[in-house]
Amino acid sequence: MATRKEVADMAGVSEATVSRVMNGVGPIRESTRQKVLEAAQTLNYHMNAIASSFARGRSGNLGVVIPHVPKVRLFSTYYFSEMMSGIGEAARAHGCGLLLLYRDPAVPYDYVSLFRTQRIDGCLVLGANSLPSETTGIAAMAEAGLPFCLIDQSFDDPGVSAVVAAHETGSYHAVSHLIESGFGRIGFLNGAPQYSTSADRLAGYRRALEESGIGFDPGLLYEGNYSMRSGQAAAAAVFADREKLDAVFVANDRMAIGLLQGLRERGCETPEDMRIVGYDDSDASRISDPPLTTVKVPFYEMGLTAADMLLERIPGWSAGASVFRRTMPTELVVRKSSAK
Amino acid sequence: MATRKEVADMAGVSEATVSRVMNGVGPIRESTRQKVLEAAQTLNYHMNAIASSFARGRSGNLGVVIPHVPKVRLFSTYYFSEMMSGIGEAARAHGCGLLLLYRDPAVPYDYVSLFRTQRIDGCLVLGANSLPSETTGIAAMAEAGLPFCLIDQSFDDPGVSAVVAAHETGSYHAVSHLIESGFGRIGFLNGAPQYSTSADRLAGYRRALEESGIGFDPGLLYEGNYSMRSGQAAAAAVFADREKLDAVFVANDRMAIGLLQGLRERGCETPEDMRIVGYDDSDASRISDPPLTTVKVPFYEMGLTAADMLLERIPGWSAGASVFRRTMPTELVVRKSSAK
Repeated sequence: MATRKEVADMAGVSEATVSRVMNGVGPIRESTRQKVLEAAQTLNYHMNAIASSFARGRSGNLGVVIPHVPKVRLFSTYYFSEMMSGIGEAARAHGCGLLLLYRDPAVPYDYVSLFRTQRIDGCLVLGANSLPSETTGIAAMAEAGLPFCLIDQSFDDPGVSAVVAAHETGSYHAVSHLIESGFGRIGFLNGAPQYSTSADRLAGYRRALEESGIGFDPGLLYEGNYSMRSGQAAAAAVFADREKLDAVFVANDRMAIGLLQGLRERGCETPEDMRIVGYDDSDASRISDPPLTTVKVPFYEMGLTAADMLLERIPGWSAGASVFRRTMPTELVVRKSSAK
Repeated sequence: MATRKEVADMAGVSEATVSRVMNGVGPIRESTRQKVLEAAQTLNYHMNAIASSFARGRSGNLGVVIPHVPKVRLFSTYYFSEMMSGIGEAARAHGCGLLLLYRDPAVPYDYVSLFRTQRIDGCLVLGANSLPSETTGIAAMAEAGLPFCLIDQSFDDPGVSAVVAAHETGSYHAVSHLIESGFGRIGFLNGAPQYSTSADRLAGYRRALEESGIGFDPGLLYEGNYSMRSGQAAAAAVFADREKLDAVFVANDRMAIGLLQGLRERGCETPEDMRIVGYDDSDASRISDPPLTTVKVPFYEMGLTAADMLLERIPGWSAGASVFRRTMPTELVVRKSSAK
């Protein structure tokens, strides 16, 4: 079977150049690319990439573990579909497969055996939370020194890599925008507290209110579960409190649209009677009526970055030195739902 | 390591019952479920499921091969995200992993080596076409008698399983609806001809026109590539032909929305000046302005059915007897874009 070195020798280039061409990464002179592709074709290098990863004791697969949520079409949500597109792009560029596995969020997941049985070489964990049923499995993976990374969930353990977004800052800007527009009485419809992303948003909401001198009132907090239905359900409580509220900051766009619809059913219009700010900058936020002011989160780039950084590190992974953390920026997007 | 039989013996049930409980499939008495779960936990059966599939020479993975389309976030399209959700649900119920692999549509893909290297036990092929670069790889898999299934693409080979939708009928109903509404001069904006789904739609369009006595006019055919941008681009030609057209039938919703926007930019409003019918019944068809008349395709159910039927057949797969075909129904959904 041909090796990368044989292809490099035949094409008269370095092994690194062979990798870059085969993975379609980085700028490369067209004549060089052609020489490498011809050599690879002559030596039938492409199909041996899989065989050689097996020979090295590797599966050639990146694991992606996602929660099973009954009745939810996870890939059809903006959050997961964008992350998956980014992860897929990185996997393709590295020439590896993505092994998608569902976990039951109520039961500790045995990540370690996925590595032991050589089903995966590295693991991305999506939609994790901080409940013991989740953290047990993740801590075991960290303790075993295995290459993995959480996306959009932080975890207080130096052995855990994570790519997250600046949700505290994003929330701070969203709430500050409402305050600066003259809407000081601001409710907050958050998601479940076991997600670090919910805690980050609460911290940003609180900081904006406290820094402005308005102060934090726990009586204006509402809770949903990030679904549109839970936003619709929250409309009852928000409507009952409407005399105390100018605006509601909502932890994602789907809940925000559900809240907006629930309020409209009760005769309370956005933005005339209530201002609403969502979160995510999903497609739905743009086509909602009215379009939502929201906070853009780079989910595609988060998936791409996490997969790319993990895949780059796997060959020389060392439990202590290889762990990485990245925080991606968020950005306020002002549309009609928060208008004066 | 515990086997399924040991769990069955400890719980006092059949092995089939153990599988049904572990896979969460079918109705099961709660007391039986509890007995099986306790036995499985005592024997640490869950994690051995993976090891035992390896011992049997199986990977425990279902391959899903999708085309790489530069700059397109495939998971963020309605078509792929719905299919993936259905496939994911079936994989979860069967306790297997989904191995996602990208192929370059311009190069024959070596499916057979995925089986030889035990990376996958079965394979689903999404977004295939009828060009030689695609059919070579698929024919090799059929010749080797391997368990695989195409989704939404038919292939004239008795060794190829496929789950498709009734696009000929769906298109026939869409065009007949326009004719019955009094719009007899109907253009057709189709996707690329290498997809059997494009050919099926053309056949249905043509049959409706011929049966009604209007007759088929090749001068009213337009071609895009199923992207919104290609629909916008087609607006120039449709607008130039507007005096010859009452309506345009479009092969998917994204192109239809692109066409609608492109016509609007030219001052041609839907449905007042031009009737448009889309295809897919995507989320976008409902929130488009005006909402699109379209043809509902059960992509989620197609993914679920293909994965479920394939996974059920893999243990006893026999090249001749196991091949399967299913055609799922499509349904006309009438909304404002085709109104009189």
